[in-house]
Parts: sequence; structure tokens; C-alpha cells
Amino acid sequence: MATLTVPAEVPSAVEDAELLRKAFIGWGTDEGRIISILAHRNSAQRASIRQVYAEKYEEDLLKSLDKELSSDFERIVLLWTLCPTERDVFLANEATRKGTAGHHVLMEIACARTSRFLFQVREDYHSRFKRSLEEDVAHHTKGDFRKLLVPLLTAHRYEGPEVNLTLASSEAKILREKISEKAYNHEELIRILTTRSKAQLNATFNHYNDSFGNSINKDLKQDPKDDFVSLLRATVKCITYPEKYFEKVLRSSLKKVGTDEDALTRVVITRAEVDMKRIKEEYQKRNSVPLEKDVEGDTSGDYKSMLLALIGNESA
Amino acid sequence: MATLTVPAEVPSAVEDAELLRKAFIGWGTDEGRIISILAHRNSAQRASIRQVYAEKYEEDLLKSLDKELSSDFERIVLLWTLCPTERDVFLANEATRKGTAGHHVLMEIACARTSRFLFQVREDYHSRFKRSLEEDVAHHTKGDFRKLLVPLLTAHRYEGPEVNLTLASSEAKILREKISEKAYNHEELIRILTTRSKAQLNATFNHYNDSFGNSINKDLKQDPKDDFVSLLRATVKCITYPEKYFEKVLRSSLKKVGTDEDALTRVVITRAEVDMKRIKEEYQKRNSVPLEKDVEGDTSGDYKSMLLALIGNESA
Repeated sequence: MATLTVPAEVPSAVEDAELLRKAFIGWGTDEGRIISILAHRNSAQRASIRQVYAEKYEEDLLKSLDKELSSDFERIVLLWTLCPTERDVFLANEATRKGTAGHHVLMEIACARTSRFLFQVREDYHSRFKRSLEEDVAHHTKGDFRKLLVPLLTAHRYEGPEVNLTLASSEAKILREKISEKAYNHEELIRILTTRSKAQLNATFNHYNDSFGNSINKDLKQDPKDDFVSLLRATVKCITYPEKYFEKVLRSSLKKVGTDEDALTRVVITRAEVDMKRIKEEYQKRNSVPLEKDVEGDTSGDYKSMLLALIGNESA
Repeated sequence: MATLTVPAEVPSAVEDAELLRKAFIGWGTDEGRIISILAHRNSAQRASIRQVYAEKYEEDLLKSLDKELSSDFERIVLLWTLCPTERDVFLANEATRKGTAGHHVLMEIACARTSRFLFQVREDYHSRFKRSLEEDVAHHTKGDFRKLLVPLLTAHRYEGPEVNLTLASSEAKILREKISEKAYNHEELIRILTTRSKAQLNATFNHYNDSFGNSINKDLKQDPKDDFVSLLRATVKCITYPEKYFEKVLRSSLKKVGTDEDALTRVVITRAEVDMKRIKEEYQKRNSVPLEKDVEGDTSGDYKSMLLALIGNESA
């Protein structure tokens, strides 16, 4: 379900590293070459290129890119070149200092990764920052946001398919009760959302829908302007329908007056190797226009070319 | 610092498995032989014996032990034979259903293991119970206990030596303030205890002592009968001086009217391969009598022999 395309015959990491070096040292940077190489290598291949490059030129590839590129194009190339867990470490750390917008990024890292991957991010966070991820998040967030985000990020959810229907029924009732009372920060509601497996939560939300006539997110929509409730809604969606969640992030980032490049970049680079095809299908369904078209209309230059290369519009 | 002793020439796992089988099938069980083998093999060796035994006799060694042994002796041999993370999975799961006594066991597993080990316990918990550890703990605990135990168990503490002294000073102040207000369940107090690295907490507690004239645990002692405060005190001790914490658990279990065999067994089997030598030194210092002597006086039969074999009294 990825949109990343890799050529049938991939050049060796040495060849790639040499061509990248050439793209940097010529008269002006050759952005086209950078895109044609990096945007068409998977994470293992990018890691090899980075390793070879460092050995050969005694400089981290990221450092060279940083010197040659600028603005949105620089950001997308740097973040894309990082290995996926390192990238999440960077995004999560940045998010701890960004308030409400950061809360959504943290939730996304907590809910749209596998348990094993999330744990690896926490391990890499140690190495990079000499602190733990939850330590920084707990330190920089407050109140209800902390109450939700810390357990989301520290959870190690069970990922098997087993579901307990009795529990789904009793916990759907708890959720309904707390939402009716507008007790959105109630510890039972948070406990259920942050500890149950995704399969179990799906069963609980289905039960909620069947028993109370509304989906849980419809009921949560009664308070649309509350930032915490909006984070709760995003959490439910990200856990149950990640592709719809990401479609919505893309839609908001593109439909805004002034594109939200950070969100656009983040979704494209974190999903291109995962489920971007499904997200594009959702986008087409919801907006009656292909994602590529809206990206083309809203962005420009090398940044646009990189985005289109990653979401799979080969003609661009 | 372990007290476990392993012979200079360890028999092969096949020989051990055969001798254990003989101990089971003869006229009456040969408990002495079981002790002489299992109490003198490290966890990797016990795992090999268990594997060979299962292949040879088509029965799990634990099952055979379960059939042949009983009461406290059975419990200690079974728990000892399990691999260390599996054993914590068993103890943690049992603890979720045991109220106050269970809270202390859960805290101990959270605080007296390395971050990596604790994560492995959480992984093994998935395999064994098809649920996550935090899911069960959050489900079975309430109020303040849940507020403390879930983040303790889900933390992945940074384990490096780096310490931020400015932070130690500001967080010591927060702790002092909350304790003075008897706000023991305050989210800031819980955040500090559950997310900071052990090195950082040590610095914070030292700062507390230096600035306010009392150790944090002395200040927490003002409310000695409150179960939650007593769990907080135990947490601080277990994080900063695990050997003193375990000495105290042993002392309480032995000095009680009626020995607390579960606690005694738990400490002996979980520490014999880790730091039991240090714990014994603390015990001697605090009680002016060797641990072995008190164990001998308070226990009997095969259970006593197994305990003494594990804490390193070879003459017993």
C-alpha cells in the first residue's frame, strides 16, 4: 500500500553516494538529481547510502544536504533521509515544544505506529536526547493533554486479533456515560483509550454505535471547539481508521488559506512507505479530486517535485 | 553480587534432565536432588534443562514439578525454574488481583528492573495473556494506585549517568511543596517519580535532603498509615536503594507473626541471581544477625533447604 517507487535495478549505494556528491559540488545544486535518487530508495537503501557517503566523504549526508538546500524542500529531504524511527524521534521532540499542533503529532506517533516501532522510537530517543520521550512530553505538557498523551506514548498495546465482547459492551457504556457527562478527561475514558488493543477498541466503538445510535466521534463532535475534545476525536480516528485520519490531515493542510507545509510534509514522508495508496484512495473519495492534483495546485518548485515523487505521480 | 552458586563443572542439560526425571519417578519424590540440581543452575542453564526435558519426556518440566511438589516448596521451585521475565509476568499478573500487597509487587517489578528487562516482561505478557500488562493493571487498580502504578510500569527510563542539576533543584522544590500540602497524588509529584531517570531522581532527592533538612522519605513518614503514602515511600526506596528496600521486605516477612512466605520467596528468587549478596550485607547490618539464621529459624523442610541453597549457605 506504499506509494514509494524503487527502480527495478537499484544502483549500488556507492554509485548513489557519488552521484549525490556530484549534485552538491557542481555549479549550483542539482535538486533534480537529489530527488531522482533519494525519493526512489527505501529506508534500508537510504541508510546504506548515508553510511557509504559518511565513510567516503567524511561528512554526514544530512549535513551536506543541510548546507545545499533550504526551506520546505530542505525539510522534506532531510526528514525523508532519516531512518523512520530517528525521524519520529525528531518529530516528537519538536512537537513537545509546539503546543496544540504538537499534541496532534505526538498522538499520531503514538497511535499510527506498531507497538514494536513505537518502542524503538523510545529507545532511539534515549540515545539522541539522553532523556526519555515520556519524560519530555510529561515535562512540556499540562493538564488533560498530559493525562492523555503520556499513556498513549508509553502504551505497548497488544496487537493480536482477540476481542472480549463482554468487555466491549461494558466499556462502551462507560465511554457513553462519560461523554454524556462531558467528563472527557475522566480517568476511565483515558484508561480505555490508552490501554486497550486496537482490535478491542474497534469492538468497543462498534458496540457504542450499535447501542447508542451515534458513533463515538459523532458524540464527541458536540464540543467541536474544545482543543482537548478535538484531540480525543483525532485519537479515536487515528486508532480505528488511520487512512481516514491522514486523509483529513492532508485535506486540512491543503485547503487552508496558506498551505500547512509541516503537516503535508509529515504525512507524505511518514506514510509513503506504509499506506499512502490507501490514503490517496480516501482522498479521491472524499474530495473528488486526486491528491496529486491538489498538491500540484498548492505547492511549487523542488518541494512540489519531491512530494509528487513520493506520492507516486511519476509523470510529474 | 549474586548468591547463586553453580558448580565448576556443570553437567549437561541432558544429564540434569535425566536425574530430575529419576527424582520424580522413584518411590516418593527425591526433593534433595531437585534442589541440588535446580538451585545451582543459572537461568540460561535452567532454560536448557527445561527444553531438553520437554523434548525427551514430552512434558513440560514445570508440569512434572507441579505434580510432584506441594505448598511453599512447590511455589519456590516452580517460580525459580521459570525464566526471569516469564516469572515477572506471572508475579505481575497475580499481583493485579491482590490489592495492596499486589501494589507493592507491581511497583517492585517496575522499579527494580532495567528498562530493557521491564520491556521484555511487557512483551512476554502479551504472549502469555493476549493483553498488555498496563491494560490489566489499569483495569484492576483504582484512584491514586492506578495513577502511580500505570506510569511506573510503562516508563522506559533513560539509564545514563547524565544529571541536570537545575532540574534537580526545581523538582526537589515541587516535591517538597506537594508533600507539605499532603498532595501526595499530585500529578507533578507522580510525573517526577515516574518519568525521570534514576540518576536524575537521586540528584533530586539529594537536593531535597540538603535544602529541606529531611530526606524525602522522612517527610513522607508523617503519614505512616496511609497505604498510598507507604507505596510512595517504598517506590522512592526501591529506586534509590534497592538493596535496602529488599532488606526491608525480607525483614518484614521474617519478623511477622507467621512468616510471609510469598514475599520471602519472591525476594529470594528474583534477587539470587542479581544482588542478593548486597541485600545480605544490609540484612546483617540492620539486624545484627545473618539472613541465613533468620531464614533457618522461620522456615522448615524442603522449602527451607531451597531458600538456603539460593541465598548461598552451602553447609545447610
